[in-house]
Amino acid sequence: MSAYHPLTEQQAVELARTLPEFFSEEAKLVSREIGDGNLNLVFHIQDTSSGKSLIMKQALPYAKVVGESWPLTLDRARIESEALLLQNKLAPGLVPQVYHYDAEMALTVMEDLSDHVIMRQGLMDGVRYPLFADHISTFMAQTLFFTSDLGLNQQEKKQRVQQFINPELCKITEDLIFDDPYTVSDNNSFDEAIADEAAALREDNRLHLEVAILRHKFLTNAQALLHGDLHTGSVFATPESTKVIDPEFAYYGPMGFDIGAVLANLLLNYAGQEHWSAADLRGEVRSELLQMIRDIWTGFEAKFRKLWDEHGVDRLANDTIGYQDFYMKQLLQDAIGFAGCKMVRRIVGLAHVADIDRIPDAAAKESAQRLALRIGKELILTNRSAHSIESLIDIAQGATKAASAVST
Amino acid sequence: MSAYHPLTEQQAVELARTLPEFFSEEAKLVSREIGDGNLNLVFHIQDTSSGKSLIMKQALPYAKVVGESWPLTLDRARIESEALLLQNKLAPGLVPQVYHYDAEMALTVMEDLSDHVIMRQGLMDGVRYPLFADHISTFMAQTLFFTSDLGLNQQEKKQRVQQFINPELCKITEDLIFDDPYTVSDNNSFDEAIADEAAALREDNRLHLEVAILRHKFLTNAQALLHGDLHTGSVFATPESTKVIDPEFAYYGPMGFDIGAVLANLLLNYAGQEHWSAADLRGEVRSELLQMIRDIWTGFEAKFRKLWDEHGVDRLANDTIGYQDFYMKQLLQDAIGFAGCKMVRRIVGLAHVADIDRIPDAAAKESAQRLALRIGKELILTNRSAHSIESLIDIAQGATKAASAVST
Repeated sequence: MSAYHPLTEQQAVELARTLPEFFSEEAKLVSREIGDGNLNLVFHIQDTSSGKSLIMKQALPYAKVVGESWPLTLDRARIESEALLLQNKLAPGLVPQVYHYDAEMALTVMEDLSDHVIMRQGLMDGVRYPLFADHISTFMAQTLFFTSDLGLNQQEKKQRVQQFINPELCKITEDLIFDDPYTVSDNNSFDEAIADEAAALREDNRLHLEVAILRHKFLTNAQALLHGDLHTGSVFATPESTKVIDPEFAYYGPMGFDIGAVLANLLLNYAGQEHWSAADLRGEVRSELLQMIRDIWTGFEAKFRKLWDEHGVDRLANDTIGYQDFYMKQLLQDAIGFAGCKMVRRIVGLAHVADIDRIPDAAAKESAQRLALRIGKELILTNRSAHSIESLIDIAQGATKAASAVST
Repeated sequence: MSAYHPLTEQQAVELARTLPEFFSEEAKLVSREIGDGNLNLVFHIQDTSSGKSLIMKQALPYAKVVGESWPLTLDRARIESEALLLQNKLAPGLVPQVYHYDAEMALTVMEDLSDHVIMRQGLMDGVRYPLFADHISTFMAQTLFFTSDLGLNQQEKKQRVQQFINPELCKITEDLIFDDPYTVSDNNSFDEAIADEAAALREDNRLHLEVAILRHKFLTNAQALLHGDLHTGSVFATPESTKVIDPEFAYYGPMGFDIGAVLANLLLNYAGQEHWSAADLRGEVRSELLQMIRDIWTGFEAKFRKLWDEHGVDRLANDTIGYQDFYMKQLLQDAIGFAGCKMVRRIVGLAHVADIDRIPDAAAKESAQRLALRIGKELILTNRSAHSIESLIDIAQGATKAASAVST
C-alpha cells in the first residue's frame, strides 16, 4: 500500500490487524462500512470473540454529495486527526480517542462509539440529554479559549493557524452558508412550497449586508481553532455522554461560528417540533430546548470567563477593566449572527437537516421551514444589537407566536 | 558557504561578482556597509568603472537594538524577499526590484536606491514630496486590495496567509506597540520631563480598552498582506519617486495598521515641527502635512473603491448595497486607532523617531512630545466613532490649539 487508494472492507480488516496492541492475534475481525458516504469511508471493525472494536475513517478524494465531480483534499484527514488529538487534550473525554493516523492513506483509527447515537437522531426520537449543555459548553470553552490569543502563547498560536489552514473545506462553508442561499445557485435546494421565502432571501439587502459582515469574519477572523461544523450530526450522545466528532472543517476562525452552529441546530430541531412532538406537549418540549440553549450559552460564558481569569496569557486583555465584557458580548453577537446563517442555509441551501426534511406531513414541514427561516433571518438582522442570550430566546418565542397566529 | 554566516564586505563583493548578468567581468567592485545595524547588514556594492550598483541585505540572527540577546528568525529575509516580489507585481515601481534571494544566507540582492533619501530625513530637512500622497495611496490600495478576500481568490488567499505567518516579527509589534507603553516595562524609554504623561498612560483604563480592542485586531484579523512597518523610515523618496522598503514585518493583518502607520508618522513629523520649521511658517507647514494626510486617505479610498468595483471577486461583497461603505468606514476607524497607537509608542516606548528625538531644544522637544501624545491618545479614544478623515484632522488641529493655549 504505497499510495492512497480507498479501502475495501477486507483491506480495512487487514490493516486493523497490523495495529500494535489493539486486537489479539486470535481476534476474529469483521468489518461494516457505516459511513453516510458523503465525504468518507467509515469502517466499524470488531473482534467477534472479544467484542473489542474500533472505527477506521478514510477520507475520499471527492465529495459524493454532489457526485465525484467535486474533488476534495485528502489533507482534511490530517486536519481531522490533528484537531481530534488537540481537542482530546483540551477537553478530555468529549471527543473520540485517536489510536492511529496514516497520512498516506488519509486514514484515522479511533474509538468506537457505537453505544452512542447521533444526537440529531436522538432529539428527533425524543431522547433527553440533560448533560449536553454542560458537556458542549465545556468543550467549546476549553477548545476555543486555549487555542486563542487569550489562552495560548501568541507565537505558538500563529503556528497553529498555519497548521490548520484549510482552504477547501472552508470554501464549502463560504459557498453553501454565506453565499448560495442569497442568490440563484444550482447548489440550492428548497421545496416549491416555500419558493416565495427563497425569492425573498435573494432580494433582502438588509439581510445581505449582515451576511456579508459575518462572511467577512469567517474569512478573516483567526480567533481560535474551530471545530468548524459543530451541528448535532457531529455529536455522538447518550443521556450521560457527549462525544464531538468529525472536525475535518477545523480551521482558525471566529469563535461565534462554533457556538452559533450548536444553537442553530437546536433551533432547527425546535422548528421541527411541528412534527416531532404532539401538539399538547410541543410547548414544553420547545421550552426545554430553549432552556438548553440558555444553559449552553450561560455555561459557556461562565466557563470561558473563569478560564480567562485563571489562565489568561495576554496581559492587556487580563488587566483592562471592561475588556472581558466587551469580548463576551462580541462573541454572543457573532454566535447569534452565525446561528441565523446556519438556520437559513439548512432550509434553502444544499444540505438540509433531518429534523425538518424528514417531516412526512407537507403542511407541518412547510410550517417548520417557515418558522426556521423566520427565526434565522431575525437572528441575522439583529445580531449586532443583541445584548444577552435572551435576545435569541425572545426571537425564537416571538417567531413561534407570530407563526402560530398566521396559521390559525 | 554551506551554512549561514554574516558576510564581511569582501565576501559580499565576491558574492556580487557571481550574480548572473549584472556586473561585467571587468567590474571594479567596492562595498560599503550602510545598514543602521539594528537587524540587518546592508552592503552597497558598486562597480567604480561603470557606476552600476546594487544593495545586498542580509538578515542578522538577532536584534541589535537590544543587544545580541534578542534572537530573531532569519526567516524574515524570506518574508521580506517574497513580500517585495509580490508588492512589485501589485504596485510596480513603488518598491525596489529584487535581483536575487539566497535562503540559506538570508540574503536579498536588490535595486540600489542611493539617489533616494529616507523620507523621514527628507521631511526633517524641509523637502516637499508633492507626489507622495498619490504614490503611497496607490501602493496601499493595490497591495491591500489584491491580497485580501475582496481581490484575491479566497483559497489562494489562505495559502498566502500560511506563507506569511511571521510570529517573531509580529511579537515585536505586539509588545512594543500594543503592550509596553501602557505598563511598566524595561523596554520603555521616555524623557524624565514627560514622566507624568507616561504615568498617565499606565492608568488610563479607557485608553487600555481601546488598545486591547485594536491589539485583538492585530492578533486575529487576517485581512490583507500588510507591509507591517510602514513608517516614513521605510520609505525611500525623492520629490518625484517613492520606494517602499523593508517589508520584513509583512504578515496577514488588518489593513488599517498599514494606513495608520503612514498617517501616524506624518503626524509625528507634524508634532516635531515645534522645531523643524520657523515659528512664522509652522502653521503653513503643518497645514501642508494635514493636507497630505487628507490626500492619502481620500486617494486610498477612491482607488480602493475603484479596484473593488472593477476587480472585486467576492459576489456578496460586490452585490450588497452599503457593504462597501461599511467596509471603508471600518478601515478608516482602524487606521485612526492604529495611528494613535503608533504615535504613543514612539514617545514613551522603545523605538523613537528622529522627527522628535533629534530636537535639540529641551522645551521644544517636550512640547512636541506632549502634542504627539495628545493627538495619539485622542485618536485611540475616538477611533470607533470616527466617520471621516476630518475626524483625524480635527483632532490634530484641536490638540495643536490646546497645546499652544497651555504654553502661552
